[in-house]
Amino acid sequence: MSETWFEELDAEQNLGMKFRTTEHLFSKKSPFQQVDIYNTVTHGRLLAHDGLIMVTEKDEFIYHDMITHVPMMTHPNPEKVLIIGGGDGGTAREVLRYKSVKKCVMVEIDPVVIEASREWLPQTSCQFNNPKLEILVADGVDFMKTSKETFDVIIVDSSDPIGPATPLFNIDFYKDIYARLSENGIVVSQCESPYYHKAMQKTLLGILKELFPRVHLYTYTNLSYPGGYWAFSFASKTLCPLKDLNPERVKKENLDFQYYNENLHWGAFQLPSFMQKEYKNLLTPLPQVRF
Amino acid sequence: MSETWFEELDAEQNLGMKFRTTEHLFSKKSPFQQVDIYNTVTHGRLLAHDGLIMVTEKDEFIYHDMITHVPMMTHPNPEKVLIIGGGDGGTAREVLRYKSVKKCVMVEIDPVVIEASREWLPQTSCQFNNPKLEILVADGVDFMKTSKETFDVIIVDSSDPIGPATPLFNIDFYKDIYARLSENGIVVSQCESPYYHKAMQKTLLGILKELFPRVHLYTYTNLSYPGGYWAFSFASKTLCPLKDLNPERVKKENLDFQYYNENLHWGAFQLPSFMQKEYKNLLTPLPQVRF
Repeated sequence: MSETWFEELDAEQNLGMKFRTTEHLFSKKSPFQQVDIYNTVTHGRLLAHDGLIMVTEKDEFIYHDMITHVPMMTHPNPEKVLIIGGGDGGTAREVLRYKSVKKCVMVEIDPVVIEASREWLPQTSCQFNNPKLEILVADGVDFMKTSKETFDVIIVDSSDPIGPATPLFNIDFYKDIYARLSENGIVVSQCESPYYHKAMQKTLLGILKELFPRVHLYTYTNLSYPGGYWAFSFASKTLCPLKDLNPERVKKENLDFQYYNENLHWGAFQLPSFMQKEYKNLLTPLPQVRF
Repeated sequence: MSETWFEELDAEQNLGMKFRTTEHLFSKKSPFQQVDIYNTVTHGRLLAHDGLIMVTEKDEFIYHDMITHVPMMTHPNPEKVLIIGGGDGGTAREVLRYKSVKKCVMVEIDPVVIEASREWLPQTSCQFNNPKLEILVADGVDFMKTSKETFDVIIVDSSDPIGPATPLFNIDFYKDIYARLSENGIVVSQCESPYYHKAMQKTLLGILKELFPRVHLYTYTNLSYPGGYWAFSFASKTLCPLKDLNPERVKKENLDFQYYNENLHWGAFQLPSFMQKEYKNLLTPLPQVRF
C-alpha cells in the first residue's frame, strides 16, 4: 500500500482532508500558482492549485452539473456562453452538450492548468478540440473590460478569492459582466461555503445586488471541498430560476445527467434557516412551492 | 499552536479527515466501543465512537434538525416518540421542543456514551433531565421485541452498521418497529452516504420496502461526515412527507430552527439523478412540485 498522501489544510491550518495517492502525475509552477495532479486511491485523479483541491475525477460531475445546467436550463435558448476560469474543461464539456449553443468562449488565465488538464484529465478536457469552443489564455478581468461580445450565460468558474482569482470577487468585474450579458442574461459564480466563507459570500451577493434585479444562491455538495456543502450565486436581468425553468424544455433536451434534474434544480435553491437569515437582505424572494 | 490531531480514516484507510485538537476530554472503553471526546479548534467538542465522528458542536444542529423535524412535522400530532440510539441527546432535545409530545423514550445501548455526553456535551444532552424523557440503557433490538407501547414517530439514530449498531440494519428489527408504530406512524433512520455506502443504503431501503407502503430517502450535508452528503430513510404507514407536510402547522409551531424549514424539508427529498436511478425500484414516487 502506497504511503504517500495528498493533504489539504484550511488557511488557519486547523482542519484537513487527506487522500492516499499512488502517483504524482504532474507538477509545475506557473506564473500564477503551483499546479499538481495526483492519482488517488478513492477519487481518481485530483487537480490542485497551490495545494487546494479543484476537481477530482470521482465528484467533478456534481460541481460541473450544478454550475452549468442551472443557468443553461433556466435560460430559454442559450446560444452564446462565456466561461471565466474553468481551465480543467468540465464546465465547457457540459455547456457544449446543448444543441442551442453556437459558441462557447473559455477565458483561463493559467496555461499550465490547461496543459495539465489536456494531458492528465481527459474526463474534463474532452471537449477542448470542439469547434464551438474558443479557448483564450487571458486574464478574465481584462477580457471583460475589452470584449464587445454579448453572452446569454456567463459562468464564473473560479478558484477561491486568494491567488489569481482575487479580482474576480470585485464590483468592477461584475459591472463589465452586466454590460456583456444579453437582455435576459444570467451570471452564475462559484460562491464558496456558507460555513467557512460567510463573509466572502456576503461580499459577492452584495456586489450582485447592487447591479442585478434578481440575485439568488443555490447549493450543492462536493465530496472533496471542506465541509462538502458549497454554493453558487445566480444573478439575472429578468429570469427567475424557479418560475422560468420550463420542465418541458428539460425533458426535451433529453440529456442523461448524472447529477442534475429538474427537481434537484429547485431543491438546490431552498436554503437552511441560518442562511436565509444571514442573506435575507441580499437575496430576491423566491416563489413558494405547491404540490 | 497545539500539535495534536483527531484523524478519522475510512475503513480501507485511503481517505481521511483531521481536526486539530486542544484537549482530550474523555476516553473510556465501554463493553461496546471506545468512546472519546476531544476539543477541536474549528468544530468545538467532538464525540467519536471507535475513532469515527458521531457529532461535533459546530454542526450537530444539521443532523439533529433533519433527523427529527422531517418526521415530527410530517406527522400531524406526534405525542409518543421513540429514539433508538441517540445517546448524545441531540435528537431528544429536538423532539422535546414540540408541545404535542407527551413522552419521549430514548433507548441507548451504551451507558458510557450517555455518561460522556452528560458530562462534556451539555449542548446536546441538555434535556436529559426533562420529565417527559425516559432514558433506557438497553439494546434497541431487545426493546423493540418486548415493548408493548405504541409510538407515532420512531427515530433510529444509530451509528454505522459496524460494531453495536449492526443488528439495527436488519429486517426483524424493522418488523418490530412496524408493529410498534401507530396507525399513521413514521420511522426515520440514519442511512449513510450515497457515495461511500451505496450497498448499505440499498439494503435498508429494501427492508423498508418489504414492510412499509411508503419509503423515501432524504439528504442533508454534515460538515464532519466523509463527503458531507448523507441521507436518512423515511418510511410510513400512510403519510407522504411532501403532501402531508402542513405549512400552517410549521408556522404555528413557531420553532426558531437553525437549519430546518418547510422549503428545505421538501428540497431534501429531491435526489440527484444517479440516486434516482440507483434507488428507483426501492422508493415510492413523490408528487411533482409546482410554482
